[in-house]
Amino acid sequence: MRIQGKEYQTIWFENNVVKIIDQTKLPHQFIIKELKTVKDAINAIKIMEVRGAPLIGGTAAYGMVLAIMEKNDPNFIKKSSEDLIQSRPTAINLKWAVDRMVKKLSGVNNNETLKIALDEAKAICEEDVKFCENIGLNGLKIIEEIYNKKKDTVNILTHCNAGWLATINWGTATSPIYHAHKKGIPVHVWVDETRPRNQGANLTSYELNEEEVPNTIIADNTGGILMQRGEVDMCIVGTDRTLSTGDVCNKIGTYLKALAAYDNNVPFYVAVPSSTIDWDIIDFNNIPIEERNSEELSHIEGLDESGSVKKVLIYPKKSKSMNLAFDVTPAKYVTGLITEKGICEASLEGLEGLFK
Amino acid sequence: MRIQGKEYQTIWFENNVVKIIDQTKLPHQFIIKELKTVKDAINAIKIMEVRGAPLIGGTAAYGMVLAIMEKNDPNFIKKSSEDLIQSRPTAINLKWAVDRMVKKLSGVNNNETLKIALDEAKAICEEDVKFCENIGLNGLKIIEEIYNKKKDTVNILTHCNAGWLATINWGTATSPIYHAHKKGIPVHVWVDETRPRNQGANLTSYELNEEEVPNTIIADNTGGILMQRGEVDMCIVGTDRTLSTGDVCNKIGTYLKALAAYDNNVPFYVAVPSSTIDWDIIDFNNIPIEERNSEELSHIEGLDESGSVKKVLIYPKKSKSMNLAFDVTPAKYVTGLITEKGICEASLEGLEGLFK
Repeated sequence: MRIQGKEYQTIWFENNVVKIIDQTKLPHQFIIKELKTVKDAINAIKIMEVRGAPLIGGTAAYGMVLAIMEKNDPNFIKKSSEDLIQSRPTAINLKWAVDRMVKKLSGVNNNETLKIALDEAKAICEEDVKFCENIGLNGLKIIEEIYNKKKDTVNILTHCNAGWLATINWGTATSPIYHAHKKGIPVHVWVDETRPRNQGANLTSYELNEEEVPNTIIADNTGGILMQRGEVDMCIVGTDRTLSTGDVCNKIGTYLKALAAYDNNVPFYVAVPSSTIDWDIIDFNNIPIEERNSEELSHIEGLDESGSVKKVLIYPKKSKSMNLAFDVTPAKYVTGLITEKGICEASLEGLEGLFK
Repeated sequence: MRIQGKEYQTIWFENNVVKIIDQTKLPHQFIIKELKTVKDAINAIKIMEVRGAPLIGGTAAYGMVLAIMEKNDPNFIKKSSEDLIQSRPTAINLKWAVDRMVKKLSGVNNNETLKIALDEAKAICEEDVKFCENIGLNGLKIIEEIYNKKKDTVNILTHCNAGWLATINWGTATSPIYHAHKKGIPVHVWVDETRPRNQGANLTSYELNEEEVPNTIIADNTGGILMQRGEVDMCIVGTDRTLSTGDVCNKIGTYLKALAAYDNNVPFYVAVPSSTIDWDIIDFNNIPIEERNSEELSHIEGLDESGSVKKVLIYPKKSKSMNLAFDVTPAKYVTGLITEKGICEASLEGLEGLFK
């Protein structure tokens, strides 16, 4: 999608390095960064220069390529694959992408490893673009249906960034929105700020602005009353791990919006590329929920009067804070899953119907 | 309660001026400010140097005193009372306090007006302290009951600041907590940050720190998963306007926590001084919900590296934002109302049983 009118993807391979958009610098600075080693890739995932389940999957795949370029040695490659999987705990795509790379490389001749790895990393990314595009086309039908009834702007609430910046292109939750916008359906997006890292404000509103999709940032607290007032026609969010039961693990606060949607009969959809499905864990209490540095809460970056980026402490000096990154929305609060293969119920039956 | 070891109330009359703690400067600076005219009082309420339903009631009462000191003229006093009521729309206490002052002053001899007004403003504030103390004693029983079963630290979640800084002393939601703490019951408070003005972090965590009550700030998004995990034993919040139906209008986001509490069988209590009860409005859709300046969302103040207070823009420059200040929690999600006269069901029957 576009930034300042120019088309980008979030990650690409060029001149023997992997290039990414440094998302910790957005929206105040647009910086393209080079990853040259597997350590660079792991670090980019850890400090969230790249984030979003599909994009960290893509970055992990390219991380394997960088490992091979550094040292084409089975032990080093194995260790690298393990380190990549460990770099963040909650999104399942990391493991999915690395396992796929490892499988593809098993039994391959040493002199072919790099080429095969690079092709597979590219294939993973291209496949993600295709998944996201199809999610967009499938979700578009829901937006069209609402528009055909309402004959007025469709108000869509989203949480965090499941936009193109969270994927390779199109986004998951945003893909139906971009497709509707391109088709001329009037849409307006309520963008949850999404504390503590404000990816809703910093990334979703930013990327919607760049594509000229009307949007308004709201505090995470605000979605409830908007739904009570009938100012939300539907919600679409992303997912970091989708259980086969239909329970959805996504950015912290998603669950609260799902409860409000349920209470106000607002349809609540989750955009699910199949790469986020976890067929193993059944009980959502067993999903590892990442706890991140509490400084992400107590400190914030912004532009001061002179236009320089400044980090400030916003909490009382003596205060402690705690930073859980994800929560789980039980399937019963999810109206449907929008996947690359179609829309299904948030249930084992629904998912198996499309994927098994 | 204490700040840096010294006892304060939030508002007092001294040397012919009204003194307040400037709450827009907390937690980074502790500044006592003088209000000398009714305009000063109106401005302090509007820009939230004082805030919290009971405290803006007390400030409005003292605002009437300041008006009389300026110009002891019935027309000026009438106009001042109207301006005070208009200064913020949602909390009912403003109207309640001003109406009470006007009633007390009606038919009074001109040379007695000031003395009677001053006595009444003091009485309103003293009564609020007494209300809050009784709310504390009534709410204490609930905390004690949980402690007696659990025999371990009682974890209480609160939203925004319904602390002593929102009242004259003790607070509403915090009063049971302070009473429990003083009695030696181990309590720990999950403090919702409460975007956009962060009164949870800036005021509630600050005042709990000063009273040495263990507390942890969390993003507004976090309460849901903590309840899913059993890490919240009860919620207590304040109210800006309580309908006779038991519906509660409080800081935006309260509703989302009530939904999560309901979904996880966590008791959800509202601390209700009777001054916040609106016996007139029946349908909560008729409550005027204040929309504040969107800059409260897009900009934030904090301490920079050198310890100076800096305001920074945290949103993309092109982004719009929208800032609704309150939402409504329907009575069905409220376990009980803790009032100065006892605990009752959130319903007309419950409230009438105590107050009519």
